[in-house]
This record gives sequence, C-alpha cells and structure tokens, in this order.
Amino acid sequence: MIENAIRFHGHQCPGLAAGIRVSEVVLRELGKPARDEEMVAIVENSSCGVDAIQLLTGCTFGKGNLIFRDYGKSVYTFINRETNKALRISLNKEAFDTDEEHRTLFAKVRNKTATEAERDIFTQKHIKKSYEILDLPEDKLMTIKQVEPEPVQKARIHESLDCVVCNEPVMETRVKLLDGDTHCIPCFEKLTGNKF
Amino acid sequence: MIENAIRFHGHQCPGLAAGIRVSEVVLRELGKPARDEEMVAIVENSSCGVDAIQLLTGCTFGKGNLIFRDYGKSVYTFINRETNKALRISLNKEAFDTDEEHRTLFAKVRNKTATEAERDIFTQKHIKKSYEILDLPEDKLMTIKQVEPEPVQKARIHESLDCVVCNEPVMETRVKLLDGDTHCIPCFEKLTGNKF
Repeated sequence: MIENAIRFHGHQCPGLAAGIRVSEVVLRELGKPARDEEMVAIVENSSCGVDAIQLLTGCTFGKGNLIFRDYGKSVYTFINRETNKALRISLNKEAFDTDEEHRTLFAKVRNKTATEAERDIFTQKHIKKSYEILDLPEDKLMTIKQVEPEPVQKARIHESLDCVVCNEPVMETRVKLLDGDTHCIPCFEKLTGNKF
Repeated sequence: MIENAIRFHGHQCPGLAAGIRVSEVVLRELGKPARDEEMVAIVENSSCGVDAIQLLTGCTFGKGNLIFRDYGKSVYTFINRETNKALRISLNKEAFDTDEEHRTLFAKVRNKTATEAERDIFTQKHIKKSYEILDLPEDKLMTIKQVEPEPVQKARIHESLDCVVCNEPVMETRVKLLDGDTHCIPCFEKLTGNKF
C-alpha cells in the first residue's frame, strides 16, 4: 500500500504519508475503494496527500469523484453514496512540526539556494518525518468528524460541438457562443480578449 | 500497463484507453515518467483519460505537474522541462464514433432509464470499443504537434496561517482578510455571504 502510493506519487514525503493515513481511515470507516462513483472525496488542497487518496480510495481526478475546492486547507471530506455516511478529516498542524535545521533546509530547497549536500540532508529528514507520520497515533495526526453528507452531483458525459475557428470538438457545456457560432475557450479568448 | 491503468481508474472504458495511448506517445517522445516535476501535463478536460495519464506519465494532481484548464477539449500538452520539448496531442473525434445501438444505450445509461440487460450490453460494447481504441493506428486516433513549451511555474509550498473563526490552518495564498484577521474561505463566505 505504502510502496504503491510512493510509486504513483514518484517520491516519499510527509504529505504523501498523511494521505496514506487518511485513506486508511476512509477504507476502514466508509468501505472499499470506489470502482465507479460510489464514494466521493472533496479535497481542499492539491498537495501530495491527494495522490495517496486517489490511489488508495479510488476517488480520482479522471473519474469525477474527486472534487477540488481550492481553499488551501488540509481538510478532506469523504461521502459514501451507498450508505450516505460522510467523514470530515482535518490534519493537525502540530503533527507536521519539524526541527529548526529541517525548516532552514526546507527554506533553502524552496528558494533553490541549497547545496547538493544540504538537499541530501533535507531529503533524509523529509523521509524520516514521513515515517513518523505513518507511525503517529491517529488522534495526534488528524481530527475525524462524522458529518451530514452534502449532495454532490455525479459526473455527466456531454455531447461535443466543433469550434468554428480551430474545428476541434468542445464539450457543449464549455462552448462560448459568439454571433451564433460555437467556439472553444482558447479561440474565444483570442478573438475577444476576454479571459476565463 | 493497461491492467495498472484499469486498476487505478476502477474500470475499463474508451476514454481510459485513449489516455493510455496518449501516455505511450509521451513516454516514447518526451522520456520517462516524472518522479518529481521534470514533466508537466496541461489537460483540457477532467475525463477518464486523465487517470491513465496520471498513472503512466507521473503527471499527477497531487504533485502539481498536472495543470487543469477546464476547456472541455480532448487536448493534452506535455512539456519536458529538462529538454524543453513540448507536444500538443488532440484526440480525433471520429475515433470515438460508435454504432447507433451503442449511442442509444449510452443515452439510456446516462438518463438512468436503461434496464439491467441494457446496461450489460452497453458495458460489453464500451469494453469492445476500448480495445478498438487501444489497437487503432496512432494517426487515426490523435494529432500530435511539436509546440513551443509555455513557461509553467513549479509547484510551491507556502506557509499556513490560522483562521480566526475555525482555528484551522490555511495556506497563506488562500487566506481572506477581514478587519485585519485571517479567515479560511468557507468561514469568510459564511461571514460575508460572498462566494468564491
């Protein structure tokens, strides 16, 4: 499970580890991974942990059962449409506290001022921290609340119409009309100067 | 490769098959799957095919190298940041043409008016179509163009600040200020009635 998540995400990090822990709770409390849209995840960030959630809970970007709300919060709400049970899981900030050296190195890596040796130490510390996250007692890592499931529409497949400029097909709900003609958003933006 | 993509996506369908074919081209022309952010995908839809792209090219939602432009087009642009080579791949609509029975069943499944037997026939036709997509000559399935790579910023990790209402941490770039206090978007929306 952990290895699969690391392979999918490309590397090991504390955020991915937290996503693994969240997924474990979801599979335990709400049932097995979604093959179709029987489970929905509403994620309030687009960070590493969401990759573990996609892989382990079956709530994926391409299936329409991963709903992204760009709130910048470490909060994940899962709804099982069959049982109508929903959980809101928020990660505790304190669980991600690091020592000063780790923080200093992190800042250097982020600003691209780290030497190769510093990057290596940072990576080691990052991986060590991710193991700590994997081992942390659940109530130290996250706050789990059972909540009322909000109604979430299922994904819908729509017809396509051709853009009169580039001739490429466009999902009809994304078509922009101009003088009665159908346009895709990029061509419409070029023609009108409007940005979406 | 195909089995892994089906397992990740949860089921087999023509859209997933197309995503597998797109990923094959990307790995052949641009290099190996991204472990970090060395490759970027800009996807113009959030349909099934994107799951294959995530799994096979390593451009994932949680890593920040999957950029979603909600244009409703079957268009995928990939940029290799190391070689500065970029490809724009658009799927040909004709490749997805189906017979009338398939279309009629699809409409019934979509409107939830299909009987169980009709759903079964539809699923069989859908899987058969997905094998056709896997076998189609590349130039029938897609149009591949080498393009100038557009500059795409790398993902950045930001500090968090606490919301004064719910006390949960919020990524600073998503904080809403009100009377000098930091708020998360959901609490800000409840307080002000403004929607984001």
